[in-house]
Amino acid sequence: MNLEKLFIDTLKDIYFAERQILKALPKMIKAARAPKLREGFSVHLEETEGQVERLQKVFEALGRRAQGKTCEAIQGIIEECEELLEEVSQPGPVRDAGLIACGQAVEHYEMARYGVLIAWAEVLGRKDIVSLLQANLDQEKKADALLTGLAESVNSAAAMAA
Amino acid sequence: MNLEKLFIDTLKDIYFAERQILKALPKMIKAARAPKLREGFSVHLEETEGQVERLQKVFEALGRRAQGKTCEAIQGIIEECEELLEEVSQPGPVRDAGLIACGQAVEHYEMARYGVLIAWAEVLGRKDIVSLLQANLDQEKKADALLTGLAESVNSAAAMAA
Repeated sequence: MNLEKLFIDTLKDIYFAERQILKALPKMIKAARAPKLREGFSVHLEETEGQVERLQKVFEALGRRAQGKTCEAIQGIIEECEELLEEVSQPGPVRDAGLIACGQAVEHYEMARYGVLIAWAEVLGRKDIVSLLQANLDQEKKADALLTGLAESVNSAAAMAA
Repeated sequence: MNLEKLFIDTLKDIYFAERQILKALPKMIKAARAPKLREGFSVHLEETEGQVERLQKVFEALGRRAQGKTCEAIQGIIEECEELLEEVSQPGPVRDAGLIACGQAVEHYEMARYGVLIAWAEVLGRKDIVSLLQANLDQEKKADALLTGLAESVNSAAAMAA
């Protein structure tokens, strides 16, 4: 196993993860009550579609067919989101606070993966790939910061809820 | 379900996660070859013991017995680490690069969880708990930054490996 092979394996992992997130986000939008949170998730759903396309370009640049590989990490994170929606069955600020927490766990997983993939693409001398991955990483960081901002009002409302 | 209940659920999640990490780190130390990486993981193993103790103090401050709750996210992340060790069976820079990637996925998960727990403890007016959780978060951030630093030389060596 060399670094290029490890890179491709990890690329398949995040490709699988992004497509799982594409499926999870509509449920999160539906479950959220705060309009700004719904809007934030909706914007990120569109961004995620673009991210999947960028990953397809990375596969193409490597002369490979885009292919996912089961990512147990994202499955676990999404499973925890689903548990949350069962446990906090009522729409409102507490559920929104939990949804933000889910969203941030997703964003952090992606930040870790893109950070590593970028570092590997750099030492492998693939600047063309670095720029595609960097565009995705920048969006994940922005999405995480947006959730941190939204959390302020959502958390305050959640603390007041009985 | 109110925010305090959600806080306790998430606290149980990270408590479970930290204890899984306590079990995983000795395997990662054993699998790593670069002395600085082994040392970094060893230092973090000691830190993690302290983090578990701080979480026990948080439970105590809430008048509750420390208790974990299965965290599918960390299980998934650790499962991916185990897969990596099977796939890159040879000790050396490629395996080390993969171990750093695993470590950073773990750190990012923890950063997301502590970030959320701190925000919730703040709105719940529990400054005593905030400072305990902040101490853990600071260590996770430092550990992540250390891994980013180590990755530079490890990745360069991994790119040269056949």
